[in-house]
Amino acid sequence: MVKIIMHGCNGHMGQVISSLVEKDPNAQIVAGIDIADNGNNSYPVFTDMEACDTPADVLIDFSSPKAADQLMDYCVRRSLPLVLCTTGLSEAQLAKVEETSGRIPVLRSANMSLGINTLLKLIQDAAKILATAGFDMEIVERHHNLKLDAPSGTALALADSLNEAMDGEYHYVYDRSQRRELRDPKEIGISAVRGGTIVGDHEVIFAGPDEVIEFKHTAYSKAVFGKGAVEAAKFLASKPAGKYDMSDVIG
Amino acid sequence: MVKIIMHGCNGHMGQVISSLVEKDPNAQIVAGIDIADNGNNSYPVFTDMEACDTPADVLIDFSSPKAADQLMDYCVRRSLPLVLCTTGLSEAQLAKVEETSGRIPVLRSANMSLGINTLLKLIQDAAKILATAGFDMEIVERHHNLKLDAPSGTALALADSLNEAMDGEYHYVYDRSQRRELRDPKEIGISAVRGGTIVGDHEVIFAGPDEVIEFKHTAYSKAVFGKGAVEAAKFLASKPAGKYDMSDVIG
Amino acid sequence: MVKIIMHGCNGHMGQVISSLVEKDPNAQIVAGIDIADNGNNSYPVFTDMEACDTPADVLIDFSSPKAADQLMDYCVRRSLPLVLCTTGLSEAQLAKVEETSGRIPVLRSANMSLGINTLLKLIQDAAKILATAGFDMEIVERHHNLKLDAPSGTALALADSLNEAMDGEYHYVYDRSQRRELRDPKEIGISAVRGGTIVGDHEVIFAGPDEVIEFKHTAYSKAVFGKGAVEAAKFLASKPAGKYDMSDVIG
Amino acid sequence: MVKIIMHGCNGHMGQVISSLVEKDPNAQIVAGIDIADNGNNSYPVFTDMEACDTPADVLIDFSSPKAADQLMDYCVRRSLPLVLCTTGLSEAQLAKVEETSGRIPVLRSANMSLGINTLLKLIQDAAKILATAGFDMEIVERHHNLKLDAPSGTALALADSLNEAMDGEYHYVYDRSQRRELRDPKEIGISAVRGGTIVGDHEVIFAGPDEVIEFKHTAYSKAVFGKGAVEAAKFLASKPAGKYDMSDVIG
Repeated sequence: MVKIIMHGCNGHMGQVISSLVEKDPNAQIVAGIDIADNGNNSYPVFTDMEACDTPADVLIDFSSPKAADQLMDYCVRRSLPLVLCTTGLSEAQLAKVEETSGRIPVLRSANMSLGINTLLKLIQDAAKILATAGFDMEIVERHHNLKLDAPSGTALALADSLNEAMDGEYHYVYDRSQRRELRDPKEIGISAVRGGTIVGDHEVIFAGPDEVIEFKHTAYSKAVFGKGAVEAAKFLASKPAGKYDMSDVIG
Repeated sequence: MVKIIMHGCNGHMGQVISSLVEKDPNAQIVAGIDIADNGNNSYPVFTDMEACDTPADVLIDFSSPKAADQLMDYCVRRSLPLVLCTTGLSEAQLAKVEETSGRIPVLRSANMSLGINTLLKLIQDAAKILATAGFDMEIVERHHNLKLDAPSGTALALADSLNEAMDGEYHYVYDRSQRRELRDPKEIGISAVRGGTIVGDHEVIFAGPDEVIEFKHTAYSKAVFGKGAVEAAKFLASKPAGKYDMSDVIG
Repeated sequence: MVKIIMHGCNGHMGQVISSLVEKDPNAQIVAGIDIADNGNNSYPVFTDMEACDTPADVLIDFSSPKAADQLMDYCVRRSLPLVLCTTGLSEAQLAKVEETSGRIPVLRSANMSLGINTLLKLIQDAAKILATAGFDMEIVERHHNLKLDAPSGTALALADSLNEAMDGEYHYVYDRSQRRELRDPKEIGISAVRGGTIVGDHEVIFAGPDEVIEFKHTAYSKAVFGKGAVEAAKFLASKPAGKYDMSDVIG
Repeated sequence: MVKIIMHGCNGHMGQVISSLVEKDPNAQIVAGIDIADNGNNSYPVFTDMEACDTPADVLIDFSSPKAADQLMDYCVRRSLPLVLCTTGLSEAQLAKVEETSGRIPVLRSANMSLGINTLLKLIQDAAKILATAGFDMEIVERHHNLKLDAPSGTALALADSLNEAMDGEYHYVYDRSQRRELRDPKEIGISAVRGGTIVGDHEVIFAGPDEVIEFKHTAYSKAVFGKGAVEAAKFLASKPAGKYDMSDVIG
């Protein structure tokens, strides 16, 4: 049973993780830390981080960059492995993450979803087999109509993963309407669909002679990041000091 | 039982149609016309069009623009309804089609596939309901890696069909990577995937609040055009002179 | 601007609808009714239905069967059109719905989702064209791993809709593993996938010679029912007394 | 450049492979063997196997079990690696395959498609990560309406592959309509869709908390088996005596 301290327990992701852990026989939230205690959690909540001395195996953080420095110090002092899910850290804070990982285990990842991290890994194996055999690689992502950037960061991460597996020989194409020429075998087409409230779909397509293989990930809510964080916590609890990311978790 | 004369019977599409009709209890090919008779057909083949006087209800043409003029004259003389599937007709020939349709029933369509023509119709009904209710509309098409143009003519026809249903208020977007701005509710995004030997997939996506409706057409071979031609022939056999297209067939 | 009273405003669906209406320029919630007022809404909330006399055009109900009788009397007395989304009504209550619809407009539907109701309609048109032309019809649904019944009620409603379009000639097949025989052209195969937390996916497949057409609906959350309720309210506000369902709304 | 002898060169698969090799810069068919020589091939065709002494690196066989015994003797005598794609071998012939593989390299596989064999491998890695993390596994396959057995052999092979990765703890479920109970976490649901002329689609679904990962394989024609055979030939040409299958090829 892995004992978790949830930092940012009353935020959206903190509550999502609380619900997930309640159903997990191998994990337990033993304490929460947040600015205010609304009394709605089944575990004690500390509004002052320093006051929390509940014995624990790991800390999950889904809060704000503002708290990150104090949090790292706190974890080092208590020798608590740290799953750091807060994004938007400053350069100075990233340097502090490096330093901290010399003293305790710290896990940080661009995308905490177990599914996407599994895909990032498997499509490399697929590319080595299929692209080498002449299959073309394409990516289609879909997101809600409020997303400004295109393609998504995750689509680019997927493309980079494919490209890395192929020794960086590929380039990316985002628009085919302005040209009239043969597809380059070394191109990865990336298409971005926008509409409604789609949380995030990603398809990696391998198209060969008379057969197509697709790897598709559909997120139904942001809870997928919570699930990844819990798995990361269980993984990190027993690790030595060092820097980890989700690819270590999925082994 | 509709009696069909198959013009271009020994070409790829002529043979596809011959196979389809053999399994169709309501249709029969009673004669073929082609440059050469390879003796492989179950019906008599005429190498001279004018020599073919087999009684019939309709003629299907899948041949060459070169033969189109003579063919139209032949059909008018015999009062034979004509399903004209040959593409690449000249302006003069298109004018002759108009003229011919004043004397016999003539059916011509940009795409003979029953499936695509059904979609062209149904997505208009869907757009009137869903786009009016605020759903965003997007199209993704996939074709083989030898296709030079993008998006496909059929994808554009689908977009035009959506746009027509919405009184022409929409515009099309082919690339979102070069901008960083909110999706315009009146845009239809059209994405083109290229790879392998994909015959032709088309998806029309309606994305709304927390739900997505997709209409997807997959072609497994060019035989889909053959099936459409046979249905068109059965439809046209009993019609008065006039111009028809596949939307008339699917009623 | 359609003025709505939200009955059950503090329940999950009541809150979903409140959020949706806030972004809708053509609708407004002018009052809520619920057992308790938590003070979190932008409109006045009445804990006693009878005390609510705010002028309004329509009432949406997403609450409990217990309140249904009083609610119907209230709407009749105020001549308020009623969108009745509460499920699990008793036989006596259903009879009262009939009676009530003789005096005010009442809308009730098995499934309030705009998307599913659009599909129920469009697949009938598709069946008349494609099944008549020999395409086979199949349905695949996916739901979360806690759903006990299979196939889903919506999958059966889709099958019934197909079958109705084909004059009731079809029968349903749920398992093909125990036999070894040719597919009957008049069968509709219905498959049920269960896993994870899938909210509800439905695919209606038309498979013909070398082409497949699919209609797919994906629900990302139960909010889809809320959106349907708002559209229903806007529709019902100006209608005469009578019984309506979602197929009237999507017209 | 791998030099191939094509046994059964004038059959459907022999012709498919001939076309594929023509476009492959790393392979060449140097001779064909078949009952009759129709003169349509770009390479010499021998109607008597024993007369064919063209120097070569490997032989691909897509013919009939009747010829298998003579063929194995021929390959042993010439020390020719053998890609054996003919199915329906007798028990005695399978024993001879074993014996033969002690003297020359022999490759035989239940399914020659590169795509399916890649999936068989990757879904094991996926299962170890995702099923271990609590994701449910389901398979949906689609085939044409003339296929009598259900589920397909390939669907069962995919399920066996998943189950093997999970130490054989899972059981298979083909029908959920006759029960009303919770899904067992250790079950793999397998659904079979039948319709039209679908060549063969297979989906492996991992459904977890708020995310779904799908692996989908679509075959557009039986040519996918040809492509696999050519890759197998290139792989086998330089191998020592022994038994191989497609999982060795995709490495």
